[in-house]
Amino acid sequence: MKCLLLHTFLTNHLSAPLTNHHNRLMTSSPSPTTTFSTLTPKHNLSSLTTTNHPNTVVFKSTCVKTRSLSISSHSVRAPMKVSASSAVVESSKSSEVVVDVDLGDRSYPIYIGSGLLNQPHLLQRHIHGKRVLVVTNTTVAPLYLDKVVTALTAGNPNVTVESVILPDGEKYKDMDTLMKVFDKAIESRLDRRCTFVALGGGVIGDMCGYAAASFLRGVNFIQIPTTVMAQVDSSVGGKTGINHPLGKNLIGAFYQPQCVLIDTDTLNTLPDRELASGLAEVIKYGLIRDAPFFEWQEKNMHALMSRDPDAFAYAIKRSCENKAEVVSQDEKESGLRATLNLGHTFGHAIETSYGYGHWLHGEAVAAGTVMAVDMSYRLGWIDESIVERTNNILKLAKLPTTPPEMMTVDMFKSVMAVDKKVADGLLRLILLKGPLGSCVFTGDYDRKALDETLHAFCKS
Amino acid sequence: MKCLLLHTFLTNHLSAPLTNHHNRLMTSSPSPTTTFSTLTPKHNLSSLTTTNHPNTVVFKSTCVKTRSLSISSHSVRAPMKVSASSAVVESSKSSEVVVDVDLGDRSYPIYIGSGLLNQPHLLQRHIHGKRVLVVTNTTVAPLYLDKVVTALTAGNPNVTVESVILPDGEKYKDMDTLMKVFDKAIESRLDRRCTFVALGGGVIGDMCGYAAASFLRGVNFIQIPTTVMAQVDSSVGGKTGINHPLGKNLIGAFYQPQCVLIDTDTLNTLPDRELASGLAEVIKYGLIRDAPFFEWQEKNMHALMSRDPDAFAYAIKRSCENKAEVVSQDEKESGLRATLNLGHTFGHAIETSYGYGHWLHGEAVAAGTVMAVDMSYRLGWIDESIVERTNNILKLAKLPTTPPEMMTVDMFKSVMAVDKKVADGLLRLILLKGPLGSCVFTGDYDRKALDETLHAFCKS
Repeated sequence: MKCLLLHTFLTNHLSAPLTNHHNRLMTSSPSPTTTFSTLTPKHNLSSLTTTNHPNTVVFKSTCVKTRSLSISSHSVRAPMKVSASSAVVESSKSSEVVVDVDLGDRSYPIYIGSGLLNQPHLLQRHIHGKRVLVVTNTTVAPLYLDKVVTALTAGNPNVTVESVILPDGEKYKDMDTLMKVFDKAIESRLDRRCTFVALGGGVIGDMCGYAAASFLRGVNFIQIPTTVMAQVDSSVGGKTGINHPLGKNLIGAFYQPQCVLIDTDTLNTLPDRELASGLAEVIKYGLIRDAPFFEWQEKNMHALMSRDPDAFAYAIKRSCENKAEVVSQDEKESGLRATLNLGHTFGHAIETSYGYGHWLHGEAVAAGTVMAVDMSYRLGWIDESIVERTNNILKLAKLPTTPPEMMTVDMFKSVMAVDKKVADGLLRLILLKGPLGSCVFTGDYDRKALDETLHAFCKS
Repeated sequence: MKCLLLHTFLTNHLSAPLTNHHNRLMTSSPSPTTTFSTLTPKHNLSSLTTTNHPNTVVFKSTCVKTRSLSISSHSVRAPMKVSASSAVVESSKSSEVVVDVDLGDRSYPIYIGSGLLNQPHLLQRHIHGKRVLVVTNTTVAPLYLDKVVTALTAGNPNVTVESVILPDGEKYKDMDTLMKVFDKAIESRLDRRCTFVALGGGVIGDMCGYAAASFLRGVNFIQIPTTVMAQVDSSVGGKTGINHPLGKNLIGAFYQPQCVLIDTDTLNTLPDRELASGLAEVIKYGLIRDAPFFEWQEKNMHALMSRDPDAFAYAIKRSCENKAEVVSQDEKESGLRATLNLGHTFGHAIETSYGYGHWLHGEAVAAGTVMAVDMSYRLGWIDESIVERTNNILKLAKLPTTPPEMMTVDMFKSVMAVDKKVADGLLRLILLKGPLGSCVFTGDYDRKALDETLHAFCKS
């Protein structure tokens, strides 16, 4: 396996304690949350630094090793420690890499590259048993189902593949649609040694993963994400689930796949709006933990919007590295992992209130990110420049920077009250704090700032 | 903590290789299953002994340590290794004991005794957060809900308790009923730090456990079983789930509780038929792994049927010890744990075909056990005396020893084809083999014997 050390990220600039000028608006001091007292001893987070405020934790960014995707027969399952190295090892063929998610006996590789669906051995080495169920939707099936079936069966006559094609869209991420997966699996007499394959975007990945977690109390599954959103975020890390009429992703499981296969060619068929939606999550990684990546995005957003393949390959790889590192440190979201939800608490309120499907997930996250950044600024935790840069980059990505006009303060509050990050009645939020690339996950903030933000973005 | 060493079980008599006279009907030798080749290296089963047949594994019985339930403040969560000791440590107050399920960081105690619901500290030490949701049914709620709410809140004003009362019966163990638990949890704005409490029989325990596994991707839960079936079997070991119209328990999760609290006084209100149903599982432990327990049951079945409290306390304790030991060795049913399903593959076919709710689970298991024992005898794997003793003890417990008359061979085959123990199309069964207390889990049996058994018990 040939690797080239291409460049080095400087990532030590994020751990400095906050100085007083960041606390401009921090006028009151609510009672400490219990969150951080349980977080710190439970997780040996090498990247966790407490600031001089006793209830605040800043997560600084580090890097993850990535290796080339060699076509040779070496085992790609060999675990690679995700470490706080300051170097990124990149492939000699930059468009084909493997990012490892290090979770002990649940570790798995993320294959990233162009044309990977034409390499059957990548999928076949992760198939358990002889039976496969591909879960996909009415949009993706005509484009890629045949290709995936071929990749699963080429030169492998023992494997038989069933498929279930679900309606497309977030509004179908519900129990009724999930039951169709179980129906198909049971009618097809699949057993515990089968493998479920999620072929599609985030909705398909989340539903197929939860179905795999629950069918016969757990079968193997593989993620083949076909949207930017799924490739940079939702397919990695094992969060699976469905929506409840009262809130997003309230029913689900932490359940890791056998592998994630990202064939970047699938983006060629992705509508512009879907493409932009995924960029909201890419921007998120920069804001919460990877300032150099954010700066790269500022320079390359035009290339991304014009679908430059090299730019996309890099954005996907760097996003997966960030995600893999966070998930490896905090699989079940005891603390650090929650930071990946920057803008999501506001965003979920938009999706739930506006009705699933009107806005794409990334569009709601984009508006939610602006709101979280606004609130961070009102708390005095970040400079105005970060507010401006966030707005600018989201606009470059043609993403919304305000919630839909119909949203009211009460709508936000009502949905946010059932957010998964509420603990003992206290809503914890991901907010930016410190220089670019630094964030906190806290319930310890001035409620006035949240109210001000909600009123600033809602007419009533 | 005072403990008395009361008696010793001799358990080394079960590992002797089978002699030829056990292979009377073993005329053909089907192709080896892959089951055992993967089972042996994956699990360090100290109690696993291969016989002189290359594809057969005999599980011999061992014992688990049990301790007294002291009311003092010592930590009852201290892990106790479940070991292959030949002694049972019993409490000085024999009706109050703790059996530990040893699963590393998912270990938990089973409290067994009379009047335990009057000891609030037992439950309260396992409550996480301030919010509790009790899941129960229309039969159990009028009897024990108030008592449980009192136990949860006595001297603990910070805890608030919600409850959801489901319709009673196996036919409601479905997705629609499960959704009522999620609805209640979300409407009550429960968060990740809440605790679900299952108060009822096996159906409630399985549904509440699966709801706890899935709500917000997993919250804490506690089992308070109120039937013999749940107390001796289903509440221990973390198998949770719901039925699908095509088969039992096909959707679910392995998810361990924080504790199991068995107040044996709850059996006072249990109908006779429910009581007998639970004894089917008690008898199972004797047949598959605990000959001395089976012999004790033969002598004490009349006492059990007349609800003798001491006899029941012992039967529950010994059953939990057997279950705890098996689960500690094979949490996710890679091999050994499957042996707890003796009679269940036939029994599930009866429940599914006959319609959930006509027969109780234990009644179907009883008939299924007779069929599994019959098949074992046809294979030449056991002596006729075991067939007779099985029939006799089930009759003493007033349990059925034949399936309902409406069952056909095709009905059995159709449901058994989607059993969770099918692997790559091959149905694996738990069958007795060798002296009393020995069993195998295998797909390596003469298909003719299965056909003969089905035809012997069905009219068409």
